[in-house]
Amino acid sequence: MRILYHLPLSPYCRKVRLALGEKRLQFELIHERVWDRRAEFEAINPACTVPVLQEETGLAIVDSSAICEYLDEAYPDVSLFGPTLAERAEVRRLVAWFDHKFGMEVTANLYGEKQLKRLLGHGHADGAVLRAGYANLKPHLEYLGWLAESRAWLAGANLSLADFAAAAHISTLDFMGEIDWTRHPAVKDWYARLKSRPAFRPLLQDKVSGLAAAPHYHDLDF
Amino acid sequence: MRILYHLPLSPYCRKVRLALGEKRLQFELIHERVWDRRAEFEAINPACTVPVLQEETGLAIVDSSAICEYLDEAYPDVSLFGPTLAERAEVRRLVAWFDHKFGMEVTANLYGEKQLKRLLGHGHADGAVLRAGYANLKPHLEYLGWLAESRAWLAGANLSLADFAAAAHISTLDFMGEIDWTRHPAVKDWYARLKSRPAFRPLLQDKVSGLAAAPHYHDLDF
Repeated sequence: MRILYHLPLSPYCRKVRLALGEKRLQFELIHERVWDRRAEFEAINPACTVPVLQEETGLAIVDSSAICEYLDEAYPDVSLFGPTLAERAEVRRLVAWFDHKFGMEVTANLYGEKQLKRLLGHGHADGAVLRAGYANLKPHLEYLGWLAESRAWLAGANLSLADFAAAAHISTLDFMGEIDWTRHPAVKDWYARLKSRPAFRPLLQDKVSGLAAAPHYHDLDF
Repeated sequence: MRILYHLPLSPYCRKVRLALGEKRLQFELIHERVWDRRAEFEAINPACTVPVLQEETGLAIVDSSAICEYLDEAYPDVSLFGPTLAERAEVRRLVAWFDHKFGMEVTANLYGEKQLKRLLGHGHADGAVLRAGYANLKPHLEYLGWLAESRAWLAGANLSLADFAAAAHISTLDFMGEIDWTRHPAVKDWYARLKSRPAFRPLLQDKVSGLAAAPHYHDLDF
């Protein structure tokens, strides 16, 4: 069986899980506590990060972007990037936007500071970092809302990896109860459409030890 | 003419310049002072980052990974990633290693702290950040040396984007005089082979106002 080494709330792992699910590829999840630096895992990925995808042949693919590019080349039936060069460029621009810009300005400051820091034993959350995360979240949700309102899907006419990357980050923050859905109706409508897809269901069932999901996290009607 | 909006010492821009050069694609460089947040540039790239590639058709591709994937799809004659799925996965793993891990642990702490901070008017370099950069540089050069010694090129038998990504970061640090070449002979041998390629020459001629290159930076025999 294909294996995905992951952490349940990592948005990069969640993006890959959505991509695998949309492509209807079966996989087994292994919860990899990267901070334990397990020797067998470091032999596969010296950077000791998740996600890592391992095929039944043994081929291991490291890094969420490398995995998504691999999946689209190896299993092209359901495209993650769209058919034209222009669409593919826009999908990859938005994936970079959410994975790097949103990731650094919002997710690292909220999920990283509140959850990862605790898991890694790095002490209490720093109030200034959290404030920066909340301050950055607002304009990011406005940009996401603008994309959701002006296009069928985030990158244009087609559902794509841009939607999965964005939904992965939003879902991690929503698990933590960080999104005020009353203020962002266009984002809510777009997220509800993604949440109701079969590929999304396993994410809604994630259990994280020592951490309860926000009450509305599982609901398709939130 | 095709345009690349860039900053001369940005390793992400340098990676794209090497990829364009190896594919023998002509382009004009525009020095984009991103901190000025020029409105015409923000209209092309709301993240206001370089590199951005603009084709003669007007199509703009934002983000260095998106640009390299685009170039390989649009101009497949000289492959940046190699022929097999396994080789492509290894190239992309190493590109992510240098762009993100080396980039955050070394380049951001040295180039970011010494040069970008000054350009952005964010004050003096923080000694603790520089010390972290130097401490991280050593094991990174050892890993790079191990790759260079055990393989023809960094990702395996073929020259690839992994070499360009790594050489881009190394060249920025070498411009600043941060690499002690006497200590890393395998890295030096690999870097000398890259430095002598025609695609590399324009990088060796870069002028940066207010900043002199290390004396050996231009030399093919360093």
